[in-house]
Amino acid sequence: MEQTKFLLNESDLPTTWYNIAADLPNLPPPPLHPGTGKPIGPDDLAPLFPMELILQEVSTDASIPIPPEVLEALSLYRPTPLIRARRLEQALDTPAKIYFKYEGVSPTGSHKPNTAIAQAYYNRQEGVKRLTTETGAGQWGSSLAFATRLFGLECKVYMVKISYEQKPYRKALIETYGAEILPSPSTTTQAGRAILEKDPYSPGSLGIAISEAVEEAVGREDTKYSLGSVLNHVLLHQTVIGQEALKQMELAGDFPDVVVGCVGGGSNFAGLAFPFLREKIHGKDIDFLAVEPASCPTLTKGELRYDFGDTAELTPLTRMYTLGHQFVPAAIHAGGLRYHGSAPLVSQLLEDGLIRAQAYTQLKTFESAVLFARTEGIVPAPESGHAVHGAIEIARQAKEEGKTRTILFNLSGHGYFDMSAYTNYLAGNLVDHELSDAEVKNCLAEMKTPLD
Amino acid sequence: MEQTKFLLNESDLPTTWYNIAADLPNLPPPPLHPGTGKPIGPDDLAPLFPMELILQEVSTDASIPIPPEVLEALSLYRPTPLIRARRLEQALDTPAKIYFKYEGVSPTGSHKPNTAIAQAYYNRQEGVKRLTTETGAGQWGSSLAFATRLFGLECKVYMVKISYEQKPYRKALIETYGAEILPSPSTTTQAGRAILEKDPYSPGSLGIAISEAVEEAVGREDTKYSLGSVLNHVLLHQTVIGQEALKQMELAGDFPDVVVGCVGGGSNFAGLAFPFLREKIHGKDIDFLAVEPASCPTLTKGELRYDFGDTAELTPLTRMYTLGHQFVPAAIHAGGLRYHGSAPLVSQLLEDGLIRAQAYTQLKTFESAVLFARTEGIVPAPESGHAVHGAIEIARQAKEEGKTRTILFNLSGHGYFDMSAYTNYLAGNLVDHELSDAEVKNCLAEMKTPLD
Repeated sequence: MEQTKFLLNESDLPTTWYNIAADLPNLPPPPLHPGTGKPIGPDDLAPLFPMELILQEVSTDASIPIPPEVLEALSLYRPTPLIRARRLEQALDTPAKIYFKYEGVSPTGSHKPNTAIAQAYYNRQEGVKRLTTETGAGQWGSSLAFATRLFGLECKVYMVKISYEQKPYRKALIETYGAEILPSPSTTTQAGRAILEKDPYSPGSLGIAISEAVEEAVGREDTKYSLGSVLNHVLLHQTVIGQEALKQMELAGDFPDVVVGCVGGGSNFAGLAFPFLREKIHGKDIDFLAVEPASCPTLTKGELRYDFGDTAELTPLTRMYTLGHQFVPAAIHAGGLRYHGSAPLVSQLLEDGLIRAQAYTQLKTFESAVLFARTEGIVPAPESGHAVHGAIEIARQAKEEGKTRTILFNLSGHGYFDMSAYTNYLAGNLVDHELSDAEVKNCLAEMKTPLD
Repeated sequence: MEQTKFLLNESDLPTTWYNIAADLPNLPPPPLHPGTGKPIGPDDLAPLFPMELILQEVSTDASIPIPPEVLEALSLYRPTPLIRARRLEQALDTPAKIYFKYEGVSPTGSHKPNTAIAQAYYNRQEGVKRLTTETGAGQWGSSLAFATRLFGLECKVYMVKISYEQKPYRKALIETYGAEILPSPSTTTQAGRAILEKDPYSPGSLGIAISEAVEEAVGREDTKYSLGSVLNHVLLHQTVIGQEALKQMELAGDFPDVVVGCVGGGSNFAGLAFPFLREKIHGKDIDFLAVEPASCPTLTKGELRYDFGDTAELTPLTRMYTLGHQFVPAAIHAGGLRYHGSAPLVSQLLEDGLIRAQAYTQLKTFESAVLFARTEGIVPAPESGHAVHGAIEIARQAKEEGKTRTILFNLSGHGYFDMSAYTNYLAGNLVDHELSDAEVKNCLAEMKTPLD
């Protein structure tokens, strides 16, 4: 029997995070204070984050040690398996080899606990008692709820109201871990009340939920704020994924010539890709493909510029590919990855040609996700379905060209909390939506910051 | 860092199933034909099952080879991890060591694919094109949908109507794998129509769904029937769990003095326990605890006698602990394990004193399941929550007595499709219900078969 799963033991867990800032030809320019237009300093961020995370945010050290307590918590589910998708290869009748790193084995079903655990740990070390955060579909909120419970912190999650109502199982998971959860916009913050005054039926948005979580964190001494993607330190914590995958590809006696990941904020893509990008920067020939939805085509159609991270303009300005902080993807888009911007580090890599990006429409994405489920068993999270589709597209092209390829993609989560999207797809209730060039032009034209 | 997870590679997968019939002091008496009262022969079962499974049902060979194609399919997710619940131990402040075998890593989230894969394989080998089955909460239906897809069979699932309506995500999962699913009672079978005539609003039951699936299988040349628990061959296929766990306990340098599993039909308990029972039969001192809900106390309050496997009296009579084939557990019971009988093999073991049984009320069960989630991360399936509670009770007793114990339990599945039960528990909407002795007496008095 040919080997399918390549496993590591806990003793193989990486003991440091890989900081790509040490190897980049160009560092992303620093975040700016929206009031002064000047680079923000540690003090500006101190009300939101513990100092250790602020230092990681600006560090250029190549490797940063993972504290033993964080490693111990990660070992509840890590190392995660690397799996060769032999049945998918057979179904595609492709000469390509397809490997995937499976992050869905974490208790909350995605890669998100990798950073939630680290963030909860550093906050507890600095005496913080409570964390606030936002969540859209709930992957991040449930992961922070899990991680704060492990380290004895309280946690309050502002969940985008429409998701709160549509995804009762995510709410239940967050509550099972003992965290508090509120639909956002809520009446407990000024930001929330201001939105509700304008529109009592607001379905909420990530931007609004961020504003509420930030407002509460700034207003309470014992409370800080936690973000699940985009920032440098978040991407840093995710590099355990790629470091493990490097060892596992070695176990498989193979090496990828293309690495694929889906991008919302960018953290699961970065987690897998960065340790392989180090190899590329040091001479290996590897293609990196970041994939995203055609209805939220940040990397492929956005503009690289300074923008706010949230709708309510409370965050610093970061330079990133963005569709504008007021952008809201079409409601018919079912596959997650709805953030208007993308991580400054990922944006820099794209600008410098070290990675490329592609956008897919949702019907093709779900078609590939269903094919994956029917061959490999695991139902992908709709987000991860984009990466599945990217891998399948490359495998099909390899067949056409009669070339072999070695593909590695990140299956960043399972879809067992998102089955209603599959129901809608199978029932023919989903339609494609591609953000047109004209719509993109309008979005970009409307984008304004105090620097403009 | 102390090791938490004990992993095996695919090359460590057991290559044979362990058949406990070879080692039992007393074999369960054979199933009887309800018409003649005589033991049924292979021909009686041939319309329902392929011959290889019928032969396994009556085999007394100690080991039965696992076909390579079955091994290959199992290797999509097996071997499953053995995990030491160190954080749970700490929370309980117990001298006991708690290990669990985690079957929730399968694509459908439970141990059920272990037999679904084998059954789909043997059916395909014998030219069967379609399988029918019933499902309650959906664990079994989704597992057979997954397995039949791997082997290119069609699959039709009759899902208990109340569950079909309450668990849309399980329905979606079954459809994602490409199987057909109907709420039961349906209008497509005589059995279903007969029920609907009497009660157009019938919520359905496992017994009715079995009748519909059996009727369709018997009536079509290309179709056979598949059962997810109770039968000898189903329990046989689950013994990969215990065989792996034996190796993994050795990796951990440990050996259990108590093995715990929850029992509905009995297959996950048997899967873990049987390979350890072989050790007990050959002299090792191990305690075996089968746990069940107090609202469906088959093993602890049922009668050991011949009874039908289904409500509609279509199946052979098997000798088992039973509450009567008309028994329906209280609707307020949220934790699964609702079957009126239990596997003849498990029943025999209980009669012979090789295992013991205990029943738990649901509030204590959910309390333990939530404690498990908050320490170990994984949210247990409500069924598996009974095993969690059993392990926790033993660990607490060990603390009281100041003794060390080595506990091994089967975490047969995760609860991510069952979060509404947790919502109800956390909201205080669940109440305890224990089947009283008087109620049990009534149930048993009402039980009638043609042999009485």
